[in-house]
Amino acid sequence: MTIDAGLPSTIEGLAHAFRSRELTSEDVTAHCLQVVAARNPSLNAFIDVFADEAIHDARDADAEMGRGVYRGPLHGVPVALKDLIDVAGKRTTAASHVRDRHIATADATIVSRLRDAGAVLLGKNNLHEFALGTTNEDSAFGPARHPADPSRSPGGSSGGSAAAVAAGMAFAAVGTDTGGSVRIPAAVCGLVGLKPAFGDIPLRGVVPLSHSLDHAGPLCRSVSDARTLFGVLSGQPGRSAGAIQNPRSLRFGVLRGYFSALLDPAVDAAFADGCARLRDAGTTLEDVDIGHSADIGAIYTHIALTEAAAYHALTLETQPHDYTPNVRLRLEMGRSILGEDYVRAQHGRVVLRAEVDAALEGRDGLLLPTVPIPAPTIGEDTVRLGRQNHREDQPVRNVMLRLTQLFNLTGHPAITLPCGAAPGHLPVGTQIVGRHGRTSDLLDAAAAIERYLGPGMSR
Amino acid sequence: MTIDAGLPSTIEGLAHAFRSRELTSEDVTAHCLQVVAARNPSLNAFIDVFADEAIHDARDADAEMGRGVYRGPLHGVPVALKDLIDVAGKRTTAASHVRDRHIATADATIVSRLRDAGAVLLGKNNLHEFALGTTNEDSAFGPARHPADPSRSPGGSSGGSAAAVAAGMAFAAVGTDTGGSVRIPAAVCGLVGLKPAFGDIPLRGVVPLSHSLDHAGPLCRSVSDARTLFGVLSGQPGRSAGAIQNPRSLRFGVLRGYFSALLDPAVDAAFADGCARLRDAGTTLEDVDIGHSADIGAIYTHIALTEAAAYHALTLETQPHDYTPNVRLRLEMGRSILGEDYVRAQHGRVVLRAEVDAALEGRDGLLLPTVPIPAPTIGEDTVRLGRQNHREDQPVRNVMLRLTQLFNLTGHPAITLPCGAAPGHLPVGTQIVGRHGRTSDLLDAAAAIERYLGPGMSR
Repeated sequence: MTIDAGLPSTIEGLAHAFRSRELTSEDVTAHCLQVVAARNPSLNAFIDVFADEAIHDARDADAEMGRGVYRGPLHGVPVALKDLIDVAGKRTTAASHVRDRHIATADATIVSRLRDAGAVLLGKNNLHEFALGTTNEDSAFGPARHPADPSRSPGGSSGGSAAAVAAGMAFAAVGTDTGGSVRIPAAVCGLVGLKPAFGDIPLRGVVPLSHSLDHAGPLCRSVSDARTLFGVLSGQPGRSAGAIQNPRSLRFGVLRGYFSALLDPAVDAAFADGCARLRDAGTTLEDVDIGHSADIGAIYTHIALTEAAAYHALTLETQPHDYTPNVRLRLEMGRSILGEDYVRAQHGRVVLRAEVDAALEGRDGLLLPTVPIPAPTIGEDTVRLGRQNHREDQPVRNVMLRLTQLFNLTGHPAITLPCGAAPGHLPVGTQIVGRHGRTSDLLDAAAAIERYLGPGMSR
Repeated sequence: MTIDAGLPSTIEGLAHAFRSRELTSEDVTAHCLQVVAARNPSLNAFIDVFADEAIHDARDADAEMGRGVYRGPLHGVPVALKDLIDVAGKRTTAASHVRDRHIATADATIVSRLRDAGAVLLGKNNLHEFALGTTNEDSAFGPARHPADPSRSPGGSSGGSAAAVAAGMAFAAVGTDTGGSVRIPAAVCGLVGLKPAFGDIPLRGVVPLSHSLDHAGPLCRSVSDARTLFGVLSGQPGRSAGAIQNPRSLRFGVLRGYFSALLDPAVDAAFADGCARLRDAGTTLEDVDIGHSADIGAIYTHIALTEAAAYHALTLETQPHDYTPNVRLRLEMGRSILGEDYVRAQHGRVVLRAEVDAALEGRDGLLLPTVPIPAPTIGEDTVRLGRQNHREDQPVRNVMLRLTQLFNLTGHPAITLPCGAAPGHLPVGTQIVGRHGRTSDLLDAAAAIERYLGPGMSR
């Protein structure tokens, strides 16, 4: 998707236009703010917009670049932040009335790195309250909405971030991903979304959901842009891509069993088409399974809700009515989980990590759909899924987390790329999972196969 | 203490005697087995003795050394193992009827490393059941007893190991330390006991107590011997000591507040005497405190009992009566701890670790007594402690863990050295705590001050 007929769609393109003086950061920032003004009333993607500061920062960037001081490919690029991330002097709402009186005293590490790279901060995006949900429906500021169909959810929890980038309000956004909260909204909005390896991006100044599962990561429009953002956010801005690999030299495992059992037919078909195009290009694809995949949901829930409950215990007692009812209910459920069950879930995690490592052995990555369904309709709690005569109503929340949460448990880097669309121009995403601690190699593999997976909304 | 008038007391001395052909491993092993035969009936330090295998292995060691093949300072040295550690083909009882039908199918990593170093394995030592206790009183095989006074406990949980080494049944033993279970029995039996930094020694093949607190470590008779054993157990057998440091160049923090508030007067005096001798030798000692020391006990209990309960949940349901009543009661208590409290305890641990790191800043280590009381009398659950008019009955278990458990929470390496004695020739130990991940530096500092701390039972 282009922001406008006259503008490049990617950070890469924008950086080129800035350097060749075809565009100024001020022009592009002003354009983004116009799109915000036009579309945010219906999409509800931003909680706060830093209009004056953004224009000011864009002028500074233009002046600096005019003097020949070039900070790199993010210089002058308008980006947005999920409103879990502290910006000094601004409120961090976490989309909750619990934080009505919060003002951040310092920038999150993520924010200071973006500023050092010259990025222009447009504002704070709506999210599922405290990041505890996949649809962005439970927010003190109301639901964010899907740019292609405002009756649908843009996914979550970084739903406002995905809607902002997909609607052309920003060139990229930084979200957080505890069970899929970057990858899910990126996939259903037709974007690239990266959850790096656990620990790659520091979380100082980010409101936690579950400390052992939390990751930050970018939502953007190409693998190249994801690499630029990952470099800045991980503190290695100069790190460049490997040589572009020939798809014939690549070998991927395609996750089956649990991972292919419960898919919307359109998602199933789009993923199958993407795999067929990769095979045609000469890539080796081999079916693989994860032995304990049936336990993923229970292990995830025990860890995520227990850690979230520990963080929220005090405010659940002092400000229970400042939470939305659904989020409060899930947090209260977390308070009753026993320590021994949490510890056993942590042991299960070690088993799952070894199984994913084994599946990656001798391969460049694992492939699977990112979300089993296209963007769900706001207000619908269940979705009918299953093969032929075994279709059942499934909770939307469980379904949306089903294919992403494993890699928060194991810490492996994972990226979603656009891969076709379901009826109604609803994007579908394919996920690529890389080796532990090797996010940069994952980006190389993703760059090699990006154009074979097929068009999403952004093409 | 010497094993016998004619034998060296340390591994270092024994290795010298083997190399100069003054002694054979078979002679020394046979002597140890005679001491076991004479004293084990009263001390109950061994659950299983591998008499035939030990003589066989000693002969092999002698033959190998005779051919000029020398595996290093543990070659031919008789050592014992806490009965939590797997030896292929032998039962690992954990001092519990729960494991009556257990036979290990493979050697623990610790055991294969000892075998590779040429050590002679004498047998398996008694312990507090499943290592959950500090006195060795709760054991399916009855209590181990203190060599200097069999009405007293040798400490725990590695009580049989300490009694075996202190009584001259073995030259060293390998124990485990989850809250102090190597250092406590080593201290009250007049030995050197090392808890290395978390993760230094692999625990594969060792029955867990609490996976995030468990460490293995040696009980022996000198810092030099501790270094030899640490080198082998950590997989770096060739690693040598640094130059012996002048005590004038060393700077230690002396932990006060919580750490000096509840001490038996004889322990207090022995520790003060040791500090005075170090000051006389020119060492710089400075009082330091740990801000959240009042929370150590609660944080430790929440983590230790929860992790233990997770491991024992199934057998508590299927074989409840195979546990001793006290150990079963504590494990059952662990089953009711909430996940959110466990997670908050893990957060508290991060705070404590930072506080210990800060206390170590610019210093070679921290000094404190190892155990607040001398060896307690078997059967007494409380001990009267406190200053002047504020003496109160305190649970023996809490008192014994009071000064050691912090460094299991933080993972810092800690060693206990003999430091004087209480009335009745009951040894007192002083603990030295080193920087995170720097066990070898801690051994260097301990070697530099060992002779100033004063005589224990082993001198």
